Amino acid sequence: MLKVYGDIYSGNCYKIKLLMSLLKLEHEWIAVDILAGEAGTEEFEKMNPNKKIPLLILDDGHYLTESNAILNYLAADSVYLPDDRYQRALVLQWQFFEQYSHEPYIATARFIRKYLGLPKEREAEYQAKQEGGHKALSVMEQQLAQTEFLTGNALTIADISLYAYTHVSHEGGFELRAYSSIRRWIESIQQTPNYVGMSD
Amino acid sequence: MLKVYGDIYSGNCYKIKLLMSLLKLEHEWIAVDILAGEAGTEEFEKMNPNKKIPLLILDDGHYLTESNAILNYLAADSVYLPDDRYQRALVLQWQFFEQYSHEPYIATARFIRKYLGLPKEREAEYQAKQEGGHKALSVMEQQLAQTEFLTGNALTIADISLYAYTHVSHEGGFELRAYSSIRRWIESIQQTPNYVGMSD
Repeated sequence: MLKVYGDIYSGNCYKIKLLMSLLKLEHEWIAVDILAGEAGTEEFEKMNPNKKIPLLILDDGHYLTESNAILNYLAADSVYLPDDRYQRALVLQWQFFEQYSHEPYIATARFIRKYLGLPKEREAEYQAKQEGGHKALSVMEQQLAQTEFLTGNALTIADISLYAYTHVSHEGGFELRAYSSIRRWIESIQQTPNYVGMSD
Repeated sequence: MLKVYGDIYSGNCYKIKLLMSLLKLEHEWIAVDILAGEAGTEEFEKMNPNKKIPLLILDDGHYLTESNAILNYLAADSVYLPDDRYQRALVLQWQFFEQYSHEPYIATARFIRKYLGLPKEREAEYQAKQEGGHKALSVMEQQLAQTEFLTGNALTIADISLYAYTHVSHEGGFELRAYSSIRRWIESIQQTPNYVGMSD
């Protein structure tokens, strides 16, 4: 059976949980407490020298890391990953956007506020994350004002990737009131059959 | 004809130039000067609201951004992108590693030193980038001590992605003496038929 090492309140790990639920993929979830340093143990480092979760173990024992790479692996041959060469590249475009231009702002601000309790010594960093986070949200808003989902009119793993931290962005201080297309898109994803929430 | 908007001294843009050379893909290269703010113009923003290069324009006029998404598009059906589902996911694993755990340290340190001339007000940031950069290099070194290339024994676009900023990492203050497998891998890539250097 597929095994996932993850922390369910990490958006990167939740992506995997959500796709597995949509695809009804049986799996074993092995909880890792990142705050307690459990991704830094010697045992875990043997599986992922980069010491990050999520990590997927395949039936044949092979390892795979990086949330968006795992999504691409799991979604192969499903409706959530288009066959068309350009559409598939667009999915990746949004996933790389997520890791470079969205996650480092929105997920980091959320981490500092929700998990660390916004300590004084990280307040400047927290504030500095707001501008980049809003820039990322506005890039998404522009796209979602034109198409129902990020790459067109069907839900793909690009949406799952961006949904993970966007739908809890208020926990990082991001107010979504001005982003009406993003709010419409969030509701639409939540109505997908077999949808599962972060804390469900 | 394919058109690429890029700055040849940006590793992210050089990735595209290198793959296009290996694949002998005819294209038009449109130089964008990022330091002069040319990726921030209104005209460019219409093509990429995220205001980043490289950007690819396909024959049918469609746009594609994010260097690693462009590599995946261009390499489809070539030897540089394996067909096997797990191998293909491994390529993505390394490309997401590159954008999240390598580029923000090594490319940013290089930018601060080479392009901005290491100004006093960014010295602390430059120093702070060294640890993360060496962590990324050590993750690569561990893999390359076991396999010839990052995903196994064949050159893929994962190698092209990581090669781009690694082979000029000394410009960001990273000394590769301790990383013998990385140095062997760099030489091996440079001997690939149709290889082109960053400043060629």
